[in-house]
Amino acid sequence: MRRLTVLTDFGTADGYVAAMKGVVASLAPLVLLDDAGHEIPQGDVARAAWALAGYWSRFPEGTVHLVVVDPGVGTERRPLAVEADGRFVVAPDNGVVSRVLADASRWSAVEVDPERLPVAESSATFHGRDLFAPAAALLAAGRALGELGRPLSEPVLLREPEPRRHRGGIEGDVVVQDRFGNLITNIPGEWVRTGMPVRVSGRSLEVRNTYGEVESGALLALVNSAGRLEVAVRDGSAARELDAEPGLPVKVIVETAGA
Amino acid sequence: MRRLTVLTDFGTADGYVAAMKGVVASLAPLVLLDDAGHEIPQGDVARAAWALAGYWSRFPEGTVHLVVVDPGVGTERRPLAVEADGRFVVAPDNGVVSRVLADASRWSAVEVDPERLPVAESSATFHGRDLFAPAAALLAAGRALGELGRPLSEPVLLREPEPRRHRGGIEGDVVVQDRFGNLITNIPGEWVRTGMPVRVSGRSLEVRNTYGEVESGALLALVNSAGRLEVAVRDGSAARELDAEPGLPVKVIVETAGA
Amino acid sequence: MRRLTVLTDFGTADGYVAAMKGVVASLAPLVLLDDAGHEIPQGDVARAAWALAGYWSRFPEGTVHLVVVDPGVGTERRPLAVEADGRFVVAPDNGVVSRVLADASRWSAVEVDPERLPVAESSATFHGRDLFAPAAALLAAGRALGELGRPLSEPVLLREPEPRRHRGGIEGDVVVQDRFGNLITNIPGEWVRTGMPVRVSGRSLEVRNTYGEVESGALLALVNSAGRLEVAVRDGSAARELDAEPGLPVKVIVETAGA
Repeated sequence: MRRLTVLTDFGTADGYVAAMKGVVASLAPLVLLDDAGHEIPQGDVARAAWALAGYWSRFPEGTVHLVVVDPGVGTERRPLAVEADGRFVVAPDNGVVSRVLADASRWSAVEVDPERLPVAESSATFHGRDLFAPAAALLAAGRALGELGRPLSEPVLLREPEPRRHRGGIEGDVVVQDRFGNLITNIPGEWVRTGMPVRVSGRSLEVRNTYGEVESGALLALVNSAGRLEVAVRDGSAARELDAEPGLPVKVIVETAGA
Repeated sequence: MRRLTVLTDFGTADGYVAAMKGVVASLAPLVLLDDAGHEIPQGDVARAAWALAGYWSRFPEGTVHLVVVDPGVGTERRPLAVEADGRFVVAPDNGVVSRVLADASRWSAVEVDPERLPVAESSATFHGRDLFAPAAALLAAGRALGELGRPLSEPVLLREPEPRRHRGGIEGDVVVQDRFGNLITNIPGEWVRTGMPVRVSGRSLEVRNTYGEVESGALLALVNSAGRLEVAVRDGSAARELDAEPGLPVKVIVETAGA
Repeated sequence: MRRLTVLTDFGTADGYVAAMKGVVASLAPLVLLDDAGHEIPQGDVARAAWALAGYWSRFPEGTVHLVVVDPGVGTERRPLAVEADGRFVVAPDNGVVSRVLADASRWSAVEVDPERLPVAESSATFHGRDLFAPAAALLAAGRALGELGRPLSEPVLLREPEPRRHRGGIEGDVVVQDRFGNLITNIPGEWVRTGMPVRVSGRSLEVRNTYGEVESGALLALVNSAGRLEVAVRDGSAARELDAEPGLPVKVIVETAGA
């Protein structure tokens, strides 16, 4: 029995998510449907890419991940299906699979051909229901990736700033905020060690192992569950503490020589 | 294996939805539970009716749709179970099934009789758990509609303004806003054609095929995924752009002669 | 086929919930995953305890309830697994299971030993994924509670004010607000009768059977679906009407002699 997860920016007040689930359930009646989440901020492809990176490979092989954060619906953006390390992702080709492709040992991709789908109807504005859901259902029902369309060798990738190492320090950037106001950077956890001083938005803090090492309300940096350096406030929000707006750049400096 | 979907205005911070799921799982252990959504605005029967219209018929026959948006709990409103085109809906008789009944080829309805339910307890305020969930579970477990209560021939229907056609034009109304700020009208998509001029809240726009045909941030009208004329802003919110409050009337005029 | 429910304060914009589901699905492929909810206010253990109390026993025996509201992650708080009346709860030992233990006929608990878990990786900040989800999955796959760790005889309990009865009256406290702004007290429903006068925040109201007995917008008290006295506004919010901040004390006085 296969699982199919669903990630969108649709919220759940309009029935759009349920319409997609109904399409999947009709084409693949035995699939187990698991919500990944529907509260991605509207059109925020980078946040969705980050979320997907956190779970796609934790599900068993054969799982299909349906991702519909699709600000480009009704433009020329292509519909994409990817097989990566035995799991599948069906999504618009807008960069949302970037981290999956970066993390997978091996992957292949196709441009989904609507003509190969059992589509009962077709709208110009709801490809989640009329195109991505049927494609995902076919994969969940056991069809091979190649049956959905022609190979696509260069899916769109999100550009993300690269962290820089130099004598005595690391310069990185906050790349995403999570719901708790944690500021997640592009600095790999392996580059830092406990005790290194960190500067961000004019504040000085330190790399710690975990929240419990500082007082409630204090700023700290730590290596998070995704293996990245993260700036956090114990029992609070680093985004609020540092006035960090989502999407605006925040530099993070680690003094590696000072440790 | 049957599916049972759940739509409420309960949110998910109180365990109310889970209590209903537990009741269903106890009475129908093999049913697959799929959330339709729990973010319907509190007591907004019209929004729930709209959401339900978008998904009820997309699930396979035999699916049970449990809908609990019930501002009338504790009054004389009747509990309702409907069979429509092979699917079931269990809901308060407050108009939330209006669009299902309008769209179905054939339907029948009963007033659920609490005496026929295996109710372990009964509260005056949580019929979702004590009445609608057990009724839905019985249907998911294969019981016939008629076993739940006596026929009810005239379920409550929501009144919605009718669009009007006259020489040279169509006058319609916005009937619901979705999460994206799209303004969904009562004007059927078949009545309009691409290029027709549209006036709404003092602004002039045009019927288009899809978002991609206008600039980011521009107003447009298009036939949406439910087959209705909709006023939208590409990459934005028509509700915000036009200061449209949910629930307040917004007229939409289409100049059919001008196309 | 067992069910496993998930309750968190993670929201669904970050993939954290889905990461936990993936871990469960990999270790217990046939388990049915049901969301209990992810909108618990951040770190609000009391609200989560209240939510859990509403559903844990309504699911069939064998169900596993995974609860991750864990402000103490990265401190010395213990990981807990409980068997109560045939259901299981896996959660941080921070009081979130208090009501389960109070309501169960019989229970036993263990401190989960991370060494006994099939953990592929381990983070200092995401025990939901790396510790609680694997423990819950093992129980869902049929392992006995005792295999997860050593008995823990005194789980942390939340302290809650006790209602007081005296000649002519009851003094109680609001212990939680729900999404609808209902103010739920610690006063057992059996202590009150319809018609008793109630005073709260300088306002006078009365115990009623149900919402339908007062006008729309009026304050009332009633015995809610959890068997507690609750202060509510028909079609409105008692929290807003009475300016009741979540977490701040609100006294509720019932005049039992006056009925």
